[in-house]
Amino acid sequence: MMSIFDQDLPQTSANYAAISPLSFIERSAQVYPQRLAVVHGSGPSALRYTWSELYRRCRQLASALSLDGIGKGDTVAVMLPNTPPMVEAHFGIPMVGAVLNTLNTRLDAETIAFMLDHGEAKVVIVDTEFAPVMRKALTLRKSTTFLNVINVTDTFYTGLNQPVGKLEYEDYIAGGDPEFDWELPDDEWSAIALNYTSGTTGNPKGVVYHHRGAATAAVSVILEWDLPKHPVFLWTLPMFHCNGWCFPWTIAARAGVNVCLRRVEAQAVFDAMRENGVTHYCGAPVVHAMLVDAPDAMKEGVASGIRAMVAGAAPPASMIEGMERMGFNLLHVYGLTEVYGPATVCAKQEAWSSLEIGERARLNARQGVSYHLERGIAVMDPATMKPVPADGETMGEIMFRGNMTMKGYLKNPKATQEALHGGWFHSGDLAVMDPDGYVRIKDRSKDIIISGGENISSIEVEDVLYRHPAVLAAAVVAQPDSQWGETPCAFIELKQNAKVSSEEIIAHCKKHLASFKAPKAVVFCELPKTSTGKIQKFELRKQANAIAS
Amino acid sequence: MMSIFDQDLPQTSANYAAISPLSFIERSAQVYPQRLAVVHGSGPSALRYTWSELYRRCRQLASALSLDGIGKGDTVAVMLPNTPPMVEAHFGIPMVGAVLNTLNTRLDAETIAFMLDHGEAKVVIVDTEFAPVMRKALTLRKSTTFLNVINVTDTFYTGLNQPVGKLEYEDYIAGGDPEFDWELPDDEWSAIALNYTSGTTGNPKGVVYHHRGAATAAVSVILEWDLPKHPVFLWTLPMFHCNGWCFPWTIAARAGVNVCLRRVEAQAVFDAMRENGVTHYCGAPVVHAMLVDAPDAMKEGVASGIRAMVAGAAPPASMIEGMERMGFNLLHVYGLTEVYGPATVCAKQEAWSSLEIGERARLNARQGVSYHLERGIAVMDPATMKPVPADGETMGEIMFRGNMTMKGYLKNPKATQEALHGGWFHSGDLAVMDPDGYVRIKDRSKDIIISGGENISSIEVEDVLYRHPAVLAAAVVAQPDSQWGETPCAFIELKQNAKVSSEEIIAHCKKHLASFKAPKAVVFCELPKTSTGKIQKFELRKQANAIAS
Repeated sequence: MMSIFDQDLPQTSANYAAISPLSFIERSAQVYPQRLAVVHGSGPSALRYTWSELYRRCRQLASALSLDGIGKGDTVAVMLPNTPPMVEAHFGIPMVGAVLNTLNTRLDAETIAFMLDHGEAKVVIVDTEFAPVMRKALTLRKSTTFLNVINVTDTFYTGLNQPVGKLEYEDYIAGGDPEFDWELPDDEWSAIALNYTSGTTGNPKGVVYHHRGAATAAVSVILEWDLPKHPVFLWTLPMFHCNGWCFPWTIAARAGVNVCLRRVEAQAVFDAMRENGVTHYCGAPVVHAMLVDAPDAMKEGVASGIRAMVAGAAPPASMIEGMERMGFNLLHVYGLTEVYGPATVCAKQEAWSSLEIGERARLNARQGVSYHLERGIAVMDPATMKPVPADGETMGEIMFRGNMTMKGYLKNPKATQEALHGGWFHSGDLAVMDPDGYVRIKDRSKDIIISGGENISSIEVEDVLYRHPAVLAAAVVAQPDSQWGETPCAFIELKQNAKVSSEEIIAHCKKHLASFKAPKAVVFCELPKTSTGKIQKFELRKQANAIAS
Repeated sequence: MMSIFDQDLPQTSANYAAISPLSFIERSAQVYPQRLAVVHGSGPSALRYTWSELYRRCRQLASALSLDGIGKGDTVAVMLPNTPPMVEAHFGIPMVGAVLNTLNTRLDAETIAFMLDHGEAKVVIVDTEFAPVMRKALTLRKSTTFLNVINVTDTFYTGLNQPVGKLEYEDYIAGGDPEFDWELPDDEWSAIALNYTSGTTGNPKGVVYHHRGAATAAVSVILEWDLPKHPVFLWTLPMFHCNGWCFPWTIAARAGVNVCLRRVEAQAVFDAMRENGVTHYCGAPVVHAMLVDAPDAMKEGVASGIRAMVAGAAPPASMIEGMERMGFNLLHVYGLTEVYGPATVCAKQEAWSSLEIGERARLNARQGVSYHLERGIAVMDPATMKPVPADGETMGEIMFRGNMTMKGYLKNPKATQEALHGGWFHSGDLAVMDPDGYVRIKDRSKDIIISGGENISSIEVEDVLYRHPAVLAAAVVAQPDSQWGETPCAFIELKQNAKVSSEEIIAHCKKHLASFKAPKAVVFCELPKTSTGKIQKFELRKQANAIAS
C-alpha cells in the first residue's frame, strides 16, 4: 500500500526547482547589486563590474547565443585565461541550456581540434593570445559543421593581437538583451560543463558535469572552507581546470569578488593581494611554493590571514612552514576532474595545532575525508569492492560516490561503465585508510613500480628525495629492467646553485628506505609540468624507457 | 534528436545519492567522533554525548524501531522538550524511513488526539512532564490501531514522574544495534517530518517535509548566518516548532554542540551560555526581550559576540539596541511552517552599519530577501499572479517557491492545491516590495482590518503603539462595527508600574496615523501568547467580538 506521505503530494514548481549554480548569480545580483563582482587589472584603468553589471553581461551573452540558435545540449568551447569573459562563460552559456567546454590554454592545436570535433562545439570563444594555436586547430578540425568563432581582445594582454575571426566578444554580447529571460534547466541532471582530462594515454576523455553536481560542489567548498560572505578571491587557479574547482559558482553564491589574473607570477599575485585585499586563493603546490620562495620585499604589506587551498600533491612540511611564516592558512584538498575538482579535505583536528611541524605536516599531507555533500569516499579492493582495513597499511583504490561525481564520459559508454562500475567512481589512485578514517594516497595505479614482485610507491621514494637539502623537485618512475622487471628511476630538479651526485642521492635514499626501493638511476633536469603545475610523469617514463633501451 | 549529453550517461549510485540530512550525522561521527555533540544539564552531572556516541544512539533508536516493524512512511510522534532524545528523534526515526511528527508540548489533549489520529502515528515518545496530557489524549483517540508508547524520564526534570506506559526510552534503545545499517531513502522526495500548523481556524493542517527540503534548509542557514564549523548552539527555540528551523540537522552538518534546555528562562539561558561558551541561539522576539530585560548581574561573564536569530515578528529598535548593549549580534529572518521555518533573511548591507539606530532598526525590521537555496520569493497579486511594483506601497501576498517549500498538507489535497496553486506557495501574509528588493510585511491576510472600505494594517498601528513609552506589547485586531464594517481594537500590555489611559493611547495614534487608522477601543491586559511567543490574535479577536456585541 502506498504510504499516506506519497499520496496527493506532487512536485510542482512551487515546491521543486532544479538545483543549479545559475540561481546563485541571480540572487547575488538581486541582493548585492552594487557589490564588486569582478576586477581585472590594477589602478584606475582596472575593469570593474558589480554583481548587477556582471549578471547583465551574462544575460547578454546568453541572449546573443540564443539569437544564434544555441540552446539545450549545444557545446560552447572557450579558450580563455582567467579574465572576465571566462567568469561570464560560466553563467551565460548554461543560461541557454548549452554546455561550457573550457579548453586548457596550454594545449597544442591537434588536441584542441580533437576536442572541438569530439565535443561537437558550435561556438568557440578565444582570447587573442591563443589565436595562433586556435587558427591552426580550426584547420585541423575534421568536422565540417559551422563553428562560430568569437575573439576576446583583452586590454591587459600585452602581446600580439591577431584575432582569428571577425567577431569581437564585446560587440557580440552588445547584441544581446541584458534582461534576457533565461530559465533553469527542466532537469538538474542536464549537462552544464564538459572538461577533457589530460589524457596521458589515448584520446582525452570528456568529463560531463551536471547542474545538480556543480551547485553541490560550489556549496561544498563553502562548508569545508568556512567561506564567509563576500570573500575576495584571487584567480591563481585556472578556470579551465575543473571549472576552477567550481569556484566561479562558489564566488557567485557568496557574492564575493573575482580578482582576475592573466598570468600567475609572484609579483602580480602579491600586487593583486595588496591592491584588492585578497582573502582566499587556490592552487597546485607549485603556486604556493612560488609565493613562499619570493623575496621578502615583494611580500611587504600583504595582509596576514589569507587562506589558501592546495591540491594536486601533498604540501611538504617546508611549504606549510613557509606559508605559516607569511601568515597564510593552508588547507589541503584532493580530487580529480571526475569529481568536480577537490572532493576530499584533510579536515584539521583541534588536537593537531599543538603538534610539532613535522607531525602536523605528516597529518595534513593526507587526502583526508569526503566533502560533506559528497556521499562518501572509500579505499577498496577493486576486485572484491570491499573496503580495505583502516590500518594505514593495506593498499586499495580510492573510490567516490555521490552527487559530486560526474555524469560520465561523453560518447564513451565503455569508459563510463568502467569508471562507475559497482556503484563507485574508480579514481585510479592507490591509497591506505588510516585508523582515524583519513585516506592517504600511496600512488596512482599506473605510477606504482613493481620490482622483483614487490610494490614500490613512487610517492614514498619522492618523499625521501624531497628531504635532501639540494632537491627542489623530484619524480620517480618505473624503468624497465631485465632482472627485476622494473626499477625506480629518479628525475631531480636541483635548487639554484646546489650540487649533488647521483651516488649521494642513492645513498641518501638507502639511508631512509629499504634498499630495493632506492632509485637505480638518477637524472638531473628541469621537470616537465602540466599547466596546472603537475609533474608530467608520462614524459619522464618515456625518457626512462629511452635510457634503459 | 536527443542531445549527446543525455546519451549513455545514466544515474547510478556512483554519481547520484538522495539529498538528505541523515548523511550529515554520519559524516560528523566519522570525521569528528570525539567532539561534543550534545550536552544536557550543568556541572559534573551533565549528560554529554560525542558525535560518535550520539550517532550510535540514533542508530540504536532506528534499530529498535525497525525491530518493532516501523519503516517507510510510518509516523512516529514525539512530545518532548529540548532534550537529547529530541535531537536523536531527528535522525533515528527517518533512518528507518519513518516520519517524525513533533507535537507542540503546550497542546491540549484533544488536539493531540486529533494529530495522533490524523497522522496515523504508530509510536509516540513522550517526556514524563507531558504524561498527564498524553494519557488523556490516548483515551480521546478515535483510532483503534496499536500505538506504542515510550516514556522519556529525564534526569533534569524536577516535577512529578508518572510514565504513561511501561516502556522506558533508555531501555528501548538499549535493545537496538548501535551499528544498525540504515540507508538513505531511495527517493529524496520521501517524507522526513510532519509538522501540524497551529490551526487558528478549523483542524490543524499537517505540513509534510521531505529529505531534499530538510537538507536544503539545514545548509541554507549555514550560508545565511555564515555559521562556522563547531558552533555551540543553545536550544532556546523549541525543536517541535518546524523541527527547530531544521537546526538539529544544521548542527550535525557543522559538527557543533547541541546545548539542551528544558525550559527557557533568563537565568538558565545565561548560565548555559557561560558554562558552555554558547556562540549561537534562535528565538521569537519574546526570548530576546527576556534576555535584554534581565538584570545586569545575571549577564556577568557572558561572552560578547554571541549571534542570535529572530523570527516571528520584526525586532523593534529597542530590542536591537538592547542586544547591541549585550554585545549580541541579531539577524532577522522570516518564514512559516510551510517553508521549513525561516526562508527569507533581512540580509544586512554594509552601508547600513553607519546609519543611526532608528533607521537601522527600520531596515532590519523587514522580512528581506529569499534564502540563497530557496528558488525565490515574490509579492504578488493573488488574483493575477503578477508581482506588485517594487514601490514600497502596493500590497500583495508573499509567495515562495523552490526546494524549501513543503511537499504539501497531509491527506488534504484541496488545501495543498490552494496553497501551491499557480506554481507558488501562498503564505497568506500581505506585504510590499521595497525598491531595494526587500519584502516588508504589512499584515496577515486575515489580520488586515477593512474599515469603510479602506485597508488598515494592524502592524502599522502596532508599530505606533510600540513607540509609546508605557507600552510593553501591543496587538490590534478588527472589531465589528455597524457603521464602518470593522474598526481597529487595540490590546495593550503595559510596562511595570506604567500608567496610561485609553484616551491618551488613541491621541498618540492620531498624532502618528491617519485618523481612521487609530483604534476605536483600547483594552489593557496581559496578551495571550503561543508557545513560540507569538501573540494569539485569534483569542483577541474573540474578545473584540465579545466587547462589540
